[in-house]
Amino acid sequence: METGVPRGMRDFLPEEMIKRNYVFDTIKKVFESYGFDPLETPIVEKWEVLAAKGGGGEAIKDEIYYFKDKGERELGLRFDLTVPLCRVIANNRSLAKPFKRYAIGRVYRYDEPQFGRYRELWQADVDIVGSNSPEADAEVVAVALECLKKLGFEDFEVRINNRKVINDFFDAIKLDEDEKKNVMRIIDKLDKIGEEGVKKQLENVISKPEIEKIVQFITIKEDIGKIEKLVEKKEGINELRQTIDSLIAMGVEKERLTIDMSLVRGLEYYTGPVFELSVEGGKWSVGGGGRYDRLISVLNGEETPATGISLGVERLIILMEEKKLFKKQKTYTQVFVASVNVENRDVVYGISNELRKEGINTENDISGKNLKKQFDYINNKEIPICIIIGPEEVKQGIATVRNMKDGKEIKVKFENVVEKIKEML
Amino acid sequence: METGVPRGMRDFLPEEMIKRNYVFDTIKKVFESYGFDPLETPIVEKWEVLAAKGGGGEAIKDEIYYFKDKGERELGLRFDLTVPLCRVIANNRSLAKPFKRYAIGRVYRYDEPQFGRYRELWQADVDIVGSNSPEADAEVVAVALECLKKLGFEDFEVRINNRKVINDFFDAIKLDEDEKKNVMRIIDKLDKIGEEGVKKQLENVISKPEIEKIVQFITIKEDIGKIEKLVEKKEGINELRQTIDSLIAMGVEKERLTIDMSLVRGLEYYTGPVFELSVEGGKWSVGGGGRYDRLISVLNGEETPATGISLGVERLIILMEEKKLFKKQKTYTQVFVASVNVENRDVVYGISNELRKEGINTENDISGKNLKKQFDYINNKEIPICIIIGPEEVKQGIATVRNMKDGKEIKVKFENVVEKIKEML
Repeated sequence: METGVPRGMRDFLPEEMIKRNYVFDTIKKVFESYGFDPLETPIVEKWEVLAAKGGGGEAIKDEIYYFKDKGERELGLRFDLTVPLCRVIANNRSLAKPFKRYAIGRVYRYDEPQFGRYRELWQADVDIVGSNSPEADAEVVAVALECLKKLGFEDFEVRINNRKVINDFFDAIKLDEDEKKNVMRIIDKLDKIGEEGVKKQLENVISKPEIEKIVQFITIKEDIGKIEKLVEKKEGINELRQTIDSLIAMGVEKERLTIDMSLVRGLEYYTGPVFELSVEGGKWSVGGGGRYDRLISVLNGEETPATGISLGVERLIILMEEKKLFKKQKTYTQVFVASVNVENRDVVYGISNELRKEGINTENDISGKNLKKQFDYINNKEIPICIIIGPEEVKQGIATVRNMKDGKEIKVKFENVVEKIKEML
Repeated sequence: METGVPRGMRDFLPEEMIKRNYVFDTIKKVFESYGFDPLETPIVEKWEVLAAKGGGGEAIKDEIYYFKDKGERELGLRFDLTVPLCRVIANNRSLAKPFKRYAIGRVYRYDEPQFGRYRELWQADVDIVGSNSPEADAEVVAVALECLKKLGFEDFEVRINNRKVINDFFDAIKLDEDEKKNVMRIIDKLDKIGEEGVKKQLENVISKPEIEKIVQFITIKEDIGKIEKLVEKKEGINELRQTIDSLIAMGVEKERLTIDMSLVRGLEYYTGPVFELSVEGGKWSVGGGGRYDRLISVLNGEETPATGISLGVERLIILMEEKKLFKKQKTYTQVFVASVNVENRDVVYGISNELRKEGINTENDISGKNLKKQFDYINNKEIPICIIIGPEEVKQGIATVRNMKDGKEIKVKFENVVEKIKEML
């Protein structure tokens, strides 16, 4: 029998889970501190719903898990957390707005698995539905940056753009709708193919003088005044400015923010502001998002403004591992109550329960191991504190408490054990 | 477009999620207090692995989500948390034993949906792998009972049996292997078809005098001495006695424990001890488990003893709702900082951030609402505290703090706001 996990999927043993839970809990706490509440949706969605994001096309079938159930219903595994949110909004029209929700959970992609890319992966999203204010865009960005900070990253930033500004610039240089689409698609590849690559590809779709202007435009960083001169309409540039101003007002340091006219983030469904989070001077993208004011209406909902950001949890975990941002911890168990022999079992259970009552995670032997074997177990799991109970201890009502890090032992009266352990933790 | 959830699946809006998280967090804390660590496995498993539990048969295909991926690999959605655990053990032979893990997560069943039964549901499991001691069986039962207690249930109990005892009794009345299987299958239905039903069905497989003996035997409750007289071998009865003794030693009240010779829990894979948790005098089963010493070897692992218990989270939540064990809470947000006008935005953001730094979940307006609309939002979400910032407040450096429950307002200097809010929460 082939008993491995399915291709591109993973088991997480406790040591790995403790790291992952640290990341999830940290992110969750930040999300909640900004007033985002949890929403959960099924892993399985109707195929139609999933296809809506890509415009209803069949192409998306190649990239996701698609199957039919026994009633021949077409289903799929969710590939992001945004489409399910939009479906919920479409189906629950009376939800008070703005609806601020977070979701941390599994999504599925039928990618060729490669280093750091999996077919089952976790994402952490915040979204604000029902506000078209740039303050809403700014808040999701501020929250995401705060997550990176709280996780221990130092060198992180967000690149920000507004699709409307690019569009306004395209209008200024008089591109038609087809040209706009083609140019946008090419600009989106800047990170991958570089400036020269972009130039080369642009040659196939528009004429020379425009190419120079476009390349000049998309390489503008920061200088909002310079951008303003190159566009005619002011809606996009005003939104962009308000987003930046709000971020500053929210306490985000200026040096975290980069206006980047080359940022497009695909052609799928963003309608204005787009963001991309990165660490190490832009080397690693660790999340992104933007405003998607039309997706809810595509899913039969009322047209409702929405903006959000998604953290790429898998990459964050890899980077945190590299940067040694995790403390080494193999178990949540804090104390092991070891028994010298079976006769003192009642005392061992009693002390264990006392500790548990005080919220201290406590184990004792439940497989008839002798003391040596119990210590092998304690050492293997790296449990920090051990209490030893033998006939002598029971007779005197005094426990031996050993700090497993330095091996130091102290004698503590039974009635003071809980208090003493609390001090030691 | 049909934008509902797939049949038998559910969305959980924040108010519902807050309840569910309370249940999950409570259970998790109890699990960890006994030294169980988290393990996570994929939702999708290879078909072969899932089929192993039912003995590799095709029958199980009707009850679970089965599909092929694009590489024609046979896959399915996990239907419990035990099979994935056994697969992990089989694939990681060097894991230190006992391996104590918990898992709280989604499982899938292709049932006909009905009240309280879903196709996507949550379970919470603890298992101990690598100990064949009755203390291990006792510990998983003790942990599960502690969960029920911590969730606020008062009237709960566990029924306990050991399959070996039934088998020893069958030997004593000289049933052959085929008869044993048939009788076991019928006994398992006692809850559903009653004593008369069992008698009737037994008539089809064995002769009259045995039927009387069997019915007498399976209706024994509690009296371990009476059972002992009816069996010849002592292994099962000794295990049963040790499990009960350990439970008492672990501090479980005697009145929570019922020995019940009719408890079989299916024929699938339990090898000895079996447990069933219930509330309201046995009216509602809320979980169960037992020892499954052969399942890991079925999955190509070394033969390894294992025991565990699973809490039926969905039913627990329904019962807690009925018993009003949840406090009403619509949001995790604790404070809303309301702004009288846009000009004071910086102060509003500043105070919000101060509160967040202290771990207080805080919102402010991010959609340009006027004060009245902000209060509609606060009231709708039932946010407990509101801080009002207007031009007068900013000029004097004094915030208006309103307790939304009683409407009482106080004036607090900006620098004392955090401290004051902490007192109020």
